[in-house]
Amino acid sequence: MKKILVLMPVEARHKAKLEAAGTGCSFTYSTPAAVTAEEIRSANIILGQPKADMIAASENLEWLQLESAGTDAYIVPGVLSSKTVLTNATGAYSQAVSEHAFALTLMLMKKLHLYRDEQKKAFWSDHGTVSSLSDSTVAVVGLGDIGQAYARLVKAMGAKVIGVKRRASNPPECVDELVMTQDLDSVLPRADVIMSVLPNTAATRYIYTAESFDHMKNSAIFINCGRGNAVSSEVLAQALLEGKIASAAMDVAEVEPLPADSPLWGIENLVITPHISGGFHLPATFERIVDIAAENLQAFLAGKTLRNEVDFTTGYKK
Amino acid sequence: MKKILVLMPVEARHKAKLEAAGTGCSFTYSTPAAVTAEEIRSANIILGQPKADMIAASENLEWLQLESAGTDAYIVPGVLSSKTVLTNATGAYSQAVSEHAFALTLMLMKKLHLYRDEQKKAFWSDHGTVSSLSDSTVAVVGLGDIGQAYARLVKAMGAKVIGVKRRASNPPECVDELVMTQDLDSVLPRADVIMSVLPNTAATRYIYTAESFDHMKNSAIFINCGRGNAVSSEVLAQALLEGKIASAAMDVAEVEPLPADSPLWGIENLVITPHISGGFHLPATFERIVDIAAENLQAFLAGKTLRNEVDFTTGYKK
Repeated sequence: MKKILVLMPVEARHKAKLEAAGTGCSFTYSTPAAVTAEEIRSANIILGQPKADMIAASENLEWLQLESAGTDAYIVPGVLSSKTVLTNATGAYSQAVSEHAFALTLMLMKKLHLYRDEQKKAFWSDHGTVSSLSDSTVAVVGLGDIGQAYARLVKAMGAKVIGVKRRASNPPECVDELVMTQDLDSVLPRADVIMSVLPNTAATRYIYTAESFDHMKNSAIFINCGRGNAVSSEVLAQALLEGKIASAAMDVAEVEPLPADSPLWGIENLVITPHISGGFHLPATFERIVDIAAENLQAFLAGKTLRNEVDFTTGYKK
Repeated sequence: MKKILVLMPVEARHKAKLEAAGTGCSFTYSTPAAVTAEEIRSANIILGQPKADMIAASENLEWLQLESAGTDAYIVPGVLSSKTVLTNATGAYSQAVSEHAFALTLMLMKKLHLYRDEQKKAFWSDHGTVSSLSDSTVAVVGLGDIGQAYARLVKAMGAKVIGVKRRASNPPECVDELVMTQDLDSVLPRADVIMSVLPNTAATRYIYTAESFDHMKNSAIFINCGRGNAVSSEVLAQALLEGKIASAAMDVAEVEPLPADSPLWGIENLVITPHISGGFHLPATFERIVDIAAENLQAFLAGKTLRNEVDFTTGYKK
């Protein structure tokens, strides 16, 4: 009888779904904050996100289903035993994050951040020309589920979409053109919007350098909804303050929470949201995560292949 | 030889387009600020927007092509001679205004106004649940070119769209359901978003009363991108401060500019933009206006029917 530890904020209907998928297993429900080391040590399956250092490479743990798409904390050597299968929740966040990035894109194009600032000062003043996706080229850097969902949104408003991904493939329907990540520099000068949704891997760390921003149009909008360390705070601040690009938005920061004394907070043409595009902010997201967990639980117990199994060498799903 | 007075901010390429359409006419170029009473009095055709009281019912004026969609200042008795044909620029603004209203919709749904406020205080804090158009019902009140363009945008993101218009017709493809304006109250309780883009007419003045907001969901978002007098500042403020609705955005105010001492400025869950959704803020808009003016000029000189002729009794195009 498999011992299953559930650390997701499940309600009765979610429990019913999981227990139906795991008939005959024993279920323990807790939270990442309340769970004990002994509960983690004895679990054969964990659904949810314990603190990585509490897992301590437990030999009992056969499978860990994360509720996040990011896997960085769990692929560090020593966190999981080599026999533990790791799956993530890739796919569950695509709607929430893509819609957030899309809203940020339109906010910047229509200068709504500047009008909000003026409102606080009771100023009725005109900030001039705005732009439209209908005559824009959008580079989507990172073309997983989120990137593709975002590409579909901007394309529906008339944008030309260049998808940037690390592996060659046939271009999905949502992009007009596909470019390999190694050729990113060739895309930057052509893009009116650069929306980056890269995970945290050795290859994506600080991928945007000061030179990357030199390549961008002065009118470009840069949006980071992936991981904060794709660009250093200094490089981004400099690009904005020197007018290398027009404006930017970030839902992620190099250090989170962004320190209160960071100069980024005060940059007018930068919009900051506190890593809330994903999480469970959109109710549909959590429903999808439970669906993935239930589907995988059934597959695991039947000895079948799991959805979203993570490749430890890349941090991506296999 | 018709005397044409052009008061639009035309560049060389626009002049070439207009003069090609008006071969054999005399062209005078000025601005609403610089134009003289004599230039207005002698013009047979005016392309652009003189101050209404300067026209003084000129008998020489055969046709006035406005650059705005709104006509309210020009249909007041005594402004235009009864023999002057009035046309507006309906259609030219649909892209700009619908995209602005769409950006405001997403800003409110994703709480980006609150995150902008937090940014100013260097706060990295979570504002909880957001919503999505994919499971929302959107009422579009006023289903002209702008309303229809907005309906297409929200529908592309998965919204159910209820169009509200004053005259019965077959529902256009961009709406799921069509309701007459007289039945507006029946629509309000069902809508997650109410986007109003009504012109200023006797029938639309203060159409949203305190009771209208009572009918709306507490979670509703109200957006006004039509004319400011569709709702009084007091009624809107009360609806927001009493939590009758979740949030609102307005690009238009009952009095414009909104007075610096208006309590509306300080309402956190209200977003204010200073009547900039239209105008010439999106470059494509002005190109379309010149196209309408040139097309109409050719038609006028050929004695043909003009596009966007205004019905003085309603203020709408005929």
